[in-house]
Amino acid sequence: MRVLVVLAHPEPQSLNVALSKVIAEELQTGGHEVQVSDLYAMGWKSNIDRADFPTFPKDKPLAIAKASQLAYTAAHLTEDVMAEQKKLLWADTVILQFPLWWFSMPAILKGYVDRVWSCGFAYGVGEHSDKRYGDRYGEGVFAGKRAMLVVTAGGWESHYSARGINGPIDDLLWPINHGILYYPGFTVLPAFVAFRVDRYDKAAFDATADRLRERIRTLSATDPIPFRPQNMGDYEIPAMVLRDDIQSEGQEGFKLHQAPSSEKQL
Amino acid sequence: MRVLVVLAHPEPQSLNVALSKVIAEELQTGGHEVQVSDLYAMGWKSNIDRADFPTFPKDKPLAIAKASQLAYTAAHLTEDVMAEQKKLLWADTVILQFPLWWFSMPAILKGYVDRVWSCGFAYGVGEHSDKRYGDRYGEGVFAGKRAMLVVTAGGWESHYSARGINGPIDDLLWPINHGILYYPGFTVLPAFVAFRVDRYDKAAFDATADRLRERIRTLSATDPIPFRPQNMGDYEIPAMVLRDDIQSEGQEGFKLHQAPSSEKQL
Repeated sequence: MRVLVVLAHPEPQSLNVALSKVIAEELQTGGHEVQVSDLYAMGWKSNIDRADFPTFPKDKPLAIAKASQLAYTAAHLTEDVMAEQKKLLWADTVILQFPLWWFSMPAILKGYVDRVWSCGFAYGVGEHSDKRYGDRYGEGVFAGKRAMLVVTAGGWESHYSARGINGPIDDLLWPINHGILYYPGFTVLPAFVAFRVDRYDKAAFDATADRLRERIRTLSATDPIPFRPQNMGDYEIPAMVLRDDIQSEGQEGFKLHQAPSSEKQL
Repeated sequence: MRVLVVLAHPEPQSLNVALSKVIAEELQTGGHEVQVSDLYAMGWKSNIDRADFPTFPKDKPLAIAKASQLAYTAAHLTEDVMAEQKKLLWADTVILQFPLWWFSMPAILKGYVDRVWSCGFAYGVGEHSDKRYGDRYGEGVFAGKRAMLVVTAGGWESHYSARGINGPIDDLLWPINHGILYYPGFTVLPAFVAFRVDRYDKAAFDATADRLRERIRTLSATDPIPFRPQNMGDYEIPAMVLRDDIQSEGQEGFKLHQAPSSEKQL
């Protein structure tokens, strides 16, 4: 495997950085290649703005999608963004690793997505017709690649359980798994989550590291989240609603967009 | 009313900035006070890091919550963060306004939350006992204040409907409404969302501006989202799961944490 880890934590001695080393070591032990984009160490710029599009006319209002598409097509994006796109294309597996801050990713990682997921690259791709609505949700630049989140949370596992007050962790991560990863084509594996990490001692770290090593060893064999592909008949085009005749066995909300385990996968 | 608008868009001629002016004008016409934190215009720093805690010992690993709590308590946070906390305390109503990028807020606004929602201010507050689990979810520094999201999205409304492929918009915004706003005490109003904004002409803008003015005029009379408060008996403490005997009328996932409209509100 060729694995890219995108890491978002400011402290070199943090649990996240330690777990990142566990990932890299386990991959290298298995004979795999690994690159780590340590966003804080790289001084990653988070805020997408006019400086992202150096050749965009200075006298025109900045429409991000248009500016992004022009710059991507002409290879006029900034060097830092193009270097990350190259790493993403090199990888067959991408891991986004971060502490859960306010129920989502840290700003620096959101800024990675905002800037690197360019128009023409990760969105705004493919044919729009009565049969297709672009290459997205199961198709796209990252099709054939796997992705997985590795997340640490301060709260207890029960707080993020089916009836937990924070909301179920898989639902909180759904906008990332489905919207940021599956949308541009990744096959998405269930997230690895470590809870209650503010109280970690050595035993807790070792147990989590062991559990993480096992997930890394089984990356290529792990069943992905069975998100429904967009252009294979499940959705009405262009309304993009799940067809009425697709039964969802009591599912609602986000879970509608996931095939029940009993349903045959494409 | 005293209203703070926190705005996240890089282009002064954008729809978001135009809608922000609509909000400010409507408020001023109504005799209300308004402040706007235009994050891009302010050059807002998004990435929380060691520079956020100037008096934190340079030789100690940076534990964010601890560093944040020490700096907040001693008023040693950076000037930009303290200025925003002051504005938030001044306001009785807070509007977060942003384009939906990758199904969440832009990095610059996430970085506002990551940096301004300090420990001891917006989290890590209050007593933890067998009766209470801190001042959060219905209690906290922002208790008694109202908050509302004003969001623009490129996709169609149907794409974000109950069975739409992007996921229901209220579920996508739930981690923000419940996790970022309700958690530190805000009373949260239903979001204002404008869809398909990439194709706006004057008629579409005028219709949206009218709809937005109406929401602004009725801010103080709008029924909030009936999120369930944490410490009033609905949740088991400290597991923080919704009590088994609380019937949810077929609800699951995020909706569990919202009282059905038939249930009497506290």
